[in-house]
Amino acid sequence: MNKAIVSLSGGMDSATVLDWLKAKKRCKVEAVSFDYGSKHNEYELPKAEALAAYYGVPHEIINLKDVFGSFKSDLLLSGGDIPEGHYTDASMVATVVPCRNLIMLSIIAGLAESKGCDTIALGIHQGDHAIYPDCRESFYNSLRLTVQEATDGKVDTIAPFLNTDKYGILEYGFMNDVPYKLTRTCYKAQELSCGKCGSCVERIEAFAKFGTKDPIAYENC
Amino acid sequence: MNKAIVSLSGGMDSATVLDWLKAKKRCKVEAVSFDYGSKHNEYELPKAEALAAYYGVPHEIINLKDVFGSFKSDLLLSGGDIPEGHYTDASMVATVVPCRNLIMLSIIAGLAESKGCDTIALGIHQGDHAIYPDCRESFYNSLRLTVQEATDGKVDTIAPFLNTDKYGILEYGFMNDVPYKLTRTCYKAQELSCGKCGSCVERIEAFAKFGTKDPIAYENC
Repeated sequence: MNKAIVSLSGGMDSATVLDWLKAKKRCKVEAVSFDYGSKHNEYELPKAEALAAYYGVPHEIINLKDVFGSFKSDLLLSGGDIPEGHYTDASMVATVVPCRNLIMLSIIAGLAESKGCDTIALGIHQGDHAIYPDCRESFYNSLRLTVQEATDGKVDTIAPFLNTDKYGILEYGFMNDVPYKLTRTCYKAQELSCGKCGSCVERIEAFAKFGTKDPIAYENC
Repeated sequence: MNKAIVSLSGGMDSATVLDWLKAKKRCKVEAVSFDYGSKHNEYELPKAEALAAYYGVPHEIINLKDVFGSFKSDLLLSGGDIPEGHYTDASMVATVVPCRNLIMLSIIAGLAESKGCDTIALGIHQGDHAIYPDCRESFYNSLRLTVQEATDGKVDTIAPFLNTDKYGILEYGFMNDVPYKLTRTCYKAQELSCGKCGSCVERIEAFAKFGTKDPIAYENC
């Protein structure tokens, strides 16, 4: 691995992947984020910028609002309210954005080839597997091969936390001082994290299990 | 196959796929084109619109100019001059847009799932295989699996002319009255097709082999 592009959302998972690339792989890294019309983009993208600045890596935000304009998902500004509860709850399926990871990673793969980067990195993990098809190991394995085919073997794909969960990510992050105060996880269109959507609940439970206070503020806390 | 989305460039290949879907599969079809900053988009996209109107299918043009803004390829407005000669010539490699098909088909796959379409269709063929990695059969097979994974089996991918060449496409087209006068193949940024770039040369040779006059006009002809 010589030079990697990480898909950086501004959340905990991709922030941890960015740290892992810099600290463990010691390779050159660039970060790419997407403005795709989600309810939380407005609050999440400044976190991605802050994380890129913290780690001193170039950062590009690509506008995908037109691409996702006709997509149906409650995660998008065009969709219904963000449901509350655990990720495993049936209602959270409404937050799936069809092929979001496939689309974003395809773009990053093309960018990687254009820029002479040999690796693309993403922060999918076991906790995502139940409701998000394009976060599962079988998707990852197939995507990896497809990207290799599309780039004539020039670009490989890695997902270092594929087989761990949010707690495992947090464990790595605390041992390596990942600045989680600079991340945002909430799906809702509001400044303060709600603490009630599936994404917040998973984060809060991981911090509770770890026995450490989450450094970000939540509504009504 | 119940409802398909075809990636419609405005060229011969995807026009023939559109005909095949309507005439042979008799399924509902929608067409999607991309404005991705290529030199020929300005001239190609009106042809895609005309083809969609001819076949009476809904047509959407998605803006990808921001996505491909940092990509390096002579096919793009940001790149160098379009080389002339056969596709097999080394210079034509400069017209590869990294992962173009992967990116476009990923978006179409997500759209298909959002719209309840079970199939996405593309016009790749043997003639593209030599220099375009994301037109080869091994890419297609891998992409098909990746799209199935990403959509939980809801969306399949077809490429009806994968194992034929431009001549084979033309053979189908003439037997089925595909309106090739409404298509455009040239890579250059000019109204009249140049007749000299790899894309024009392949088309002209296919028509010559078939013994029929190409219904479109060329510069200096």
